[in-house]
Amino acid sequence: MKIPVAILGGTGSVGQRLVGELGEHPWFEITELCASDKSAGKTYAEATHWILSTPIPDSVCSKQVLPCSLPVKAKIVFSALSSSVAGPIEEEFASAGHIVISMAKNNRMRADVPMLIPEVNPEHLNLTRLQKYPSGGMIITKPNCSVIGLAMALAPLEARFGIESVNVVTMQSTSGAGYPGVPSLALFDNIIPYIEDEEEKLEMELGKIFGTFSDSGVIPHRMTVSATCTRVPVTEGHLEIASVKFRNKATLADVKDAWRNFGQPKFLEGLPHAPVRPIIYSDDVAFPQPRLHRDYEKGMAVTIGRLRECSLFDFKFALLSHNTLRGAAGGAVLIAEMLAKSQFKASQFCCQGCVREESTRSV
Amino acid sequence: MKIPVAILGGTGSVGQRLVGELGEHPWFEITELCASDKSAGKTYAEATHWILSTPIPDSVCSKQVLPCSLPVKAKIVFSALSSSVAGPIEEEFASAGHIVISMAKNNRMRADVPMLIPEVNPEHLNLTRLQKYPSGGMIITKPNCSVIGLAMALAPLEARFGIESVNVVTMQSTSGAGYPGVPSLALFDNIIPYIEDEEEKLEMELGKIFGTFSDSGVIPHRMTVSATCTRVPVTEGHLEIASVKFRNKATLADVKDAWRNFGQPKFLEGLPHAPVRPIIYSDDVAFPQPRLHRDYEKGMAVTIGRLRECSLFDFKFALLSHNTLRGAAGGAVLIAEMLAKSQFKASQFCCQGCVREESTRSV
Amino acid sequence: MKIPVAILGGTGSVGQRLVGELGEHPWFEITELCASDKSAGKTYAEATHWILSTPIPDSVCSKQVLPCSLPVKAKIVFSALSSSVAGPIEEEFASAGHIVISMAKNNRMRADVPMLIPEVNPEHLNLTRLQKYPSGGMIITKPNCSVIGLAMALAPLEARFGIESVNVVTMQSTSGAGYPGVPSLALFDNIIPYIEDEEEKLEMELGKIFGTFSDSGVIPHRMTVSATCTRVPVTEGHLEIASVKFRNKATLADVKDAWRNFGQPKFLEGLPHAPVRPIIYSDDVAFPQPRLHRDYEKGMAVTIGRLRECSLFDFKFALLSHNTLRGAAGGAVLIAEMLAKSQFKASQFCCQGCVREESTRSV
Amino acid sequence: MKIPVAILGGTGSVGQRLVGELGEHPWFEITELCASDKSAGKTYAEATHWILSTPIPDSVCSKQVLPCSLPVKAKIVFSALSSSVAGPIEEEFASAGHIVISMAKNNRMRADVPMLIPEVNPEHLNLTRLQKYPSGGMIITKPNCSVIGLAMALAPLEARFGIESVNVVTMQSTSGAGYPGVPSLALFDNIIPYIEDEEEKLEMELGKIFGTFSDSGVIPHRMTVSATCTRVPVTEGHLEIASVKFRNKATLADVKDAWRNFGQPKFLEGLPHAPVRPIIYSDDVAFPQPRLHRDYEKGMAVTIGRLRECSLFDFKFALLSHNTLRGAAGGAVLIAEMLAKSQFKASQFCCQGCVREESTRSV
Repeated sequence: MKIPVAILGGTGSVGQRLVGELGEHPWFEITELCASDKSAGKTYAEATHWILSTPIPDSVCSKQVLPCSLPVKAKIVFSALSSSVAGPIEEEFASAGHIVISMAKNNRMRADVPMLIPEVNPEHLNLTRLQKYPSGGMIITKPNCSVIGLAMALAPLEARFGIESVNVVTMQSTSGAGYPGVPSLALFDNIIPYIEDEEEKLEMELGKIFGTFSDSGVIPHRMTVSATCTRVPVTEGHLEIASVKFRNKATLADVKDAWRNFGQPKFLEGLPHAPVRPIIYSDDVAFPQPRLHRDYEKGMAVTIGRLRECSLFDFKFALLSHNTLRGAAGGAVLIAEMLAKSQFKASQFCCQGCVREESTRSV
Repeated sequence: MKIPVAILGGTGSVGQRLVGELGEHPWFEITELCASDKSAGKTYAEATHWILSTPIPDSVCSKQVLPCSLPVKAKIVFSALSSSVAGPIEEEFASAGHIVISMAKNNRMRADVPMLIPEVNPEHLNLTRLQKYPSGGMIITKPNCSVIGLAMALAPLEARFGIESVNVVTMQSTSGAGYPGVPSLALFDNIIPYIEDEEEKLEMELGKIFGTFSDSGVIPHRMTVSATCTRVPVTEGHLEIASVKFRNKATLADVKDAWRNFGQPKFLEGLPHAPVRPIIYSDDVAFPQPRLHRDYEKGMAVTIGRLRECSLFDFKFALLSHNTLRGAAGGAVLIAEMLAKSQFKASQFCCQGCVREESTRSV
Repeated sequence: MKIPVAILGGTGSVGQRLVGELGEHPWFEITELCASDKSAGKTYAEATHWILSTPIPDSVCSKQVLPCSLPVKAKIVFSALSSSVAGPIEEEFASAGHIVISMAKNNRMRADVPMLIPEVNPEHLNLTRLQKYPSGGMIITKPNCSVIGLAMALAPLEARFGIESVNVVTMQSTSGAGYPGVPSLALFDNIIPYIEDEEEKLEMELGKIFGTFSDSGVIPHRMTVSATCTRVPVTEGHLEIASVKFRNKATLADVKDAWRNFGQPKFLEGLPHAPVRPIIYSDDVAFPQPRLHRDYEKGMAVTIGRLRECSLFDFKFALLSHNTLRGAAGGAVLIAEMLAKSQFKASQFCCQGCVREESTRSV
Repeated sequence: MKIPVAILGGTGSVGQRLVGELGEHPWFEITELCASDKSAGKTYAEATHWILSTPIPDSVCSKQVLPCSLPVKAKIVFSALSSSVAGPIEEEFASAGHIVISMAKNNRMRADVPMLIPEVNPEHLNLTRLQKYPSGGMIITKPNCSVIGLAMALAPLEARFGIESVNVVTMQSTSGAGYPGVPSLALFDNIIPYIEDEEEKLEMELGKIFGTFSDSGVIPHRMTVSATCTRVPVTEGHLEIASVKFRNKATLADVKDAWRNFGQPKFLEGLPHAPVRPIIYSDDVAFPQPRLHRDYEKGMAVTIGRLRECSLFDFKFALLSHNTLRGAAGGAVLIAEMLAKSQFKASQFCCQGCVREESTRSV
């Protein structure tokens, strides 16, 4: 018996990735696919302009699309809604007792909402105790797709050396803009050195992710972040050039060591979407590259390369993550898998101790 | 009567750009086209795998390609030679009394060789006085294509505020790698976060360009530069994201003002390749973009946008320059035009005074 | 004193090309720029998401955009309207006495409307005599962008050998779909083997273009045409692979001869947009290529290569034309220039004789 | 115990695909990796500029590369050698008793060498009986990558309706040119309407593939084929536009029926690389597309769409196949799997009867 899940916004580009990851999932079963009113009533295949390179899973192909409204039966509800509508709909579902795992930006910075990367800040799940929804309803978010890879690359460095400041220049793929997103005429043979609101998200979300959990919310981390975000003619995979300054001394070898020892935490063992190696560092010249390395660990790893000392910061390096897998649908499914493993008992993952204990990494 | 010029390495990708810029030049006439021994003896059209989007100029189409050896008749000799052979050949031509204007890297860092951007460091021409070639022979170089745009963007800022440090991430087009250069399979849907030796050039050449001329050579500028260079799927135009720290205080308005007042210097007036506006700044969101803005001022302008204050440096911005025009062939032709205007009298441009006087900008 | 012209739909992608071609035109002056109601009232620069690689011409930058409604003062009105609205608006302007030169498909197949390529079927202008608009009002169209290049390539072959049938496979650039047009995510690393309605247009319009003018309309040519249209990841330039069967015998040399002798007709001499060589044939292997050859003759030439005998038809070859210049804005401006040269006297170009006489080509 | 196989030319782009397909193969084990003398002696990881998007399989990463010379231990030897050297080396290995499965063109048209597509012409394996190598040595080839997809699309049509003629225009991906292959500067924003020797291969190889096996060799099929081959900016997947004329009458429904019934033949059941659906036809508009559909059935299916009646031929359609999987490495591995299933007994697959019997398809 699989666990039923619903998807809100299932026909859009991120919704399709969710369908792709969940359509043949060993634990979950998509029981309800919800989308805009103009899609409702059609079969999923009719309603969707499918843009993935794998066929629509048989399990959802002829399923009827529902409107994005209550009631739905599944306890777990993934939200791939557009930020123009996500806010109130997610509230509504949480209020009805659903566990909403959202990819939209609307609720990310709310004081009582965790913005979760399981390998990085699992204890933030406890924030949901501050939420006052009935029947175990809650909202959990994941960070922006440009933030996740960087946060994962920084996590072991923060733990060991303390991050003081980060300068980052991103080269983000066009799938990050959704569909239809950026016109081809605007991006062939071109780069657009601007993505609306993206730099602000990068600078703000990192502080919350690395913030300290307390009973009244997360106390943000004080690292200084300066970001420039660009859109490049690449289909999938955000490449980022980061420069970091630490609070404590570190050598090149220390940094590589930190990354190489950042293994899969115990509480993620056996989860279908948990990468065995969340970070893959290589000394190879010209590593990582979007087309070659975005699919490592089924798109759930962050690949890192080009670590050098920096004359202005301490170190600089290049990192890559798959923006619609690790950075969106895959990251959301991983959260659901983590919840499922703990049997969806709030008390379970709301108990700081047990998570902390588990978060000792098993390398 | 046009001034005869010779081209060394005329069949390669930069050589072709030179031919494109010189083939119908109002002042110059290509009298001799030299290339490798396997091309010598063929007509230029036969010897060249032409890759420009304008036809081969009629004036050179059926001209016979010569070997890269003395004698050539033209006083001015452009070198678009590969760095694997450029060094000794350029020496040989200078020793025979030719004015060699080189795009190769070989002689750039030599203490007695100017690395020239006419709008930025014209007084460095005086370095040629230190060269000991007979009959007015000399070698003049231009900087690496990734450096020129950045140096031009920094020039008015250095003049007004003093540059203390620069962090730069480049996104360089594939034409910068020459032909055949980067395989299509390596760059479609991809970015390569590494270009051999490029970061070193960027970090080193800026110091010389902004260095102070003295009778014994250039005293390098002490700005700290940290660079990461990447190759992107774009045909022409290097986009760069720069962060700068000044020695003196400046406001956003001051910086824009500095760029907007960086006009054409008097001594470049009327030169066919001198842009009327060497720097074009725009507050438009998403400016500049390679495909849209690389051809501004016939590819000789540097376009700049996205100026913001930076939490880590003072300011950050994006800049773009056409790498095979402003960054290579166009930049070299501009040097030749500058020499031609001064009637090729060494005494003329070797007299510091007159250049300095002229370099008062006429905005 | 320049001739005033108005543009309907001036902010879209084809409208921008028109502005690009007319903004500094030696004969014409854009006096009125009309667009949708949401653009009306803004300056052209504000209303337009400019996507050309040359700056907005100074002459229109701060001009106020008007709604697409009467009255306008200019006699000549270019229509770059979307086909969803073009029909009735073009009627309205013609009824008010304007000469409407349209790039929209709406009126192309009307029995009394010429679908004009000046080098191919100038006598079709006489169709306008059948139109019953007052005060010299009339509608003139140009064919679909995928048709123009092919029609020009076929014109001298039809004249000499008679076309019996044509098979054509097109590889059309993304600018042909307008802006925003095809999403980048749909076209990076991809080809879409379908363009709505395009094959039908190709098969139908050729018949009218090569049809015979008679007093009651055009008697369509009976050539059989079979087309497959695809969208490729190219910014500008439609490449087409054509196979043709003639009614009369021809050799390879005959065909090349026909193309090489297809010069500029006398009545187009001196027109700013009339290419001196409307057809450029080359025996070079790998000719023509979109990026290299689309701009030949300022984007107004059709380039042809790869002529071979065909085991199924008589001959096959590849042809290329710039779809937004020769295939749209440039083609429309050329029609206006042709009218201007004849001083806009309907009697002038409505007199078959004079046009016929002139259409003897001056090679 | 896995079956040992050797790879000749294992470091090139096709060789890498072989390594990718064989590195974790359930039946085969790469025991010997041979390459050029300059690679020999290095580990495979050192010798190879790896360009696949999956990591180098652990099983070969540190294996030492051998020279392409005898002896090797594995009976089965895959040749991914360049055609400049493949001929004599393949001869040498066959003469030493190896079963050489070659992707090179050199031996394809030899009268005694099968050019095999297991689903299309399995009985051609019997040609190997004409080869006179000792100890069961033999050479088997697969067709050119542009031919395989077309041949598979035509196979059920030939069987039912008889092919009289085929016109085909290909749009071939850059991986088909190997590595480094086509320069990025030559193919960004561009199409090259020519591939050396490719049209000739297409026109010639189809005749052999569909030829009739006889004791003295294959009697070629007499279909008339006319091909134009182009190179497009796509990483993987050859898209082809075909028009066909049949000897017998057929309706649209008949053709679709033929494709839909072209199932997996019995003798391929259970083979790891045998697609369950070798042909996937869809009526969806805009099917197939390289990026979306090339990976169907792990890159071993041919996807077909856009079937329409044709005014010049009987029908036209679009087809797609993955050129380095189905069209090269995957196709070769499938041949080896077919041999392995028959236990490599020449007598087994050299007995016409048994193959014929088996080739009755199990739909």
